[in-house]
Amino acid sequence: MHQTFDAALEINLLHANQAGADHNRSHFDEWGIRCLNLMSSPGAGKTALLERTLAALSGELKITVIEGDMTTELDADRLRQYGVPVIAINTGRSCHLDSKMVAGGIHSLAKDYDPSKFDLLLVENVGNLVCPAEFEVGEHGKVALLSVTEGEDKPLKYPLMFREADCLLLTKIDLAPYLEIDLPRLEANVRQINPQVTILPVSAKTGEGLENWLAWVRLTVNSSQQTVVSSRPTVQ
Amino acid sequence: MHQTFDAALEINLLHANQAGADHNRSHFDEWGIRCLNLMSSPGAGKTALLERTLAALSGELKITVIEGDMTTELDADRLRQYGVPVIAINTGRSCHLDSKMVAGGIHSLAKDYDPSKFDLLLVENVGNLVCPAEFEVGEHGKVALLSVTEGEDKPLKYPLMFREADCLLLTKIDLAPYLEIDLPRLEANVRQINPQVTILPVSAKTGEGLENWLAWVRLTVNSSQQTVVSSRPTVQ
Repeated sequence: MHQTFDAALEINLLHANQAGADHNRSHFDEWGIRCLNLMSSPGAGKTALLERTLAALSGELKITVIEGDMTTELDADRLRQYGVPVIAINTGRSCHLDSKMVAGGIHSLAKDYDPSKFDLLLVENVGNLVCPAEFEVGEHGKVALLSVTEGEDKPLKYPLMFREADCLLLTKIDLAPYLEIDLPRLEANVRQINPQVTILPVSAKTGEGLENWLAWVRLTVNSSQQTVVSSRPTVQ
Repeated sequence: MHQTFDAALEINLLHANQAGADHNRSHFDEWGIRCLNLMSSPGAGKTALLERTLAALSGELKITVIEGDMTTELDADRLRQYGVPVIAINTGRSCHLDSKMVAGGIHSLAKDYDPSKFDLLLVENVGNLVCPAEFEVGEHGKVALLSVTEGEDKPLKYPLMFREADCLLLTKIDLAPYLEIDLPRLEANVRQINPQVTILPVSAKTGEGLENWLAWVRLTVNSSQQTVVSSRPTVQ
């Protein structure tokens, strides 16, 4: 969050965003869509994970994607190859998606598709381990990705993202042998911030751990349509 | 940058920050200190690079560090082991350092030290590839770090950071053999955004390329004390 001159304005900004997020979620619930918000530092592998996810699940679930980037449609184009509708949102100078942008994305989707035909909306946020965690977009669950190359101290240094996450994917786990990463310590640091989060080591490159991730996604889609973000699945 | 309700407020925020940055820099120039602002995604290796830099240069240059983190003094404590004054700034919910915070850090340093005795102030910004690039703190040069694990598309997706950088360090170059990274394409993407930037591949782990980085730092310290951020050294 940028510091503003006016604390009241900052509160207004977050309140207005939250109202928009609640509005989005009520539409998702009405349509029977589950929404997941994927967040991480740049380059932690959100798009690679989505490619694997679409390849595995687009036969059994009707999926659509909102792809947030400050600029370019590079990631959106990668995902369009999987034959699902991908709405690209360029945020310009904004360092995160907000609920208003996602509402705009949904309106754009609804021009060509009946939203109630979808089971799952995957939102790929702007690469940023800080600000996206403050701006809910209407999701039913928050998925944080942390590449093992980023180091075991990150949950302590960027606590909000890790506190908010329902599922934490430790990505690029195939690189762990080439790093000095202390994985038990990383897990302990995560648990200090968020004892309940589901932690799943994965590699989009080798496929390691992806079955657990796909099981978590299926469980989220098939769980109650009631909006309870805090009802955290416990697949490990 | 967060979207605010009021475009004028956003402009005021950046203008006020710039005035503070210019003020800081005029002090640095008066004291004969050169200031570098190090910025990157979380986990790209800013602190590891600073450890190597302090180990190599603290005998020949009088160095001080401002260490910006949202929370914790983990990184500041790592750097204090090198026997240089390290001022820790916890930014709380703010996703970047600004010129006012750095001014506060300098005032804190000046309680115990004569600032004019220092040659070099190294500022480690909050891990964020977006917002720190918008908020100058009074630096004479901007150093961006991009880990090769982050992928070759990042300069296109986060252009401001790469456009603003005077020196770009491609960190963790020792991991390149284990990745599918296309280094020539990465360099082409950087050059598309910023043709003049000095690009230096480095590894804080193996020491590869560090001599080039140290040469760039020495050149920056020894170059004219006139404030010309755009006078880019061309060490390659």
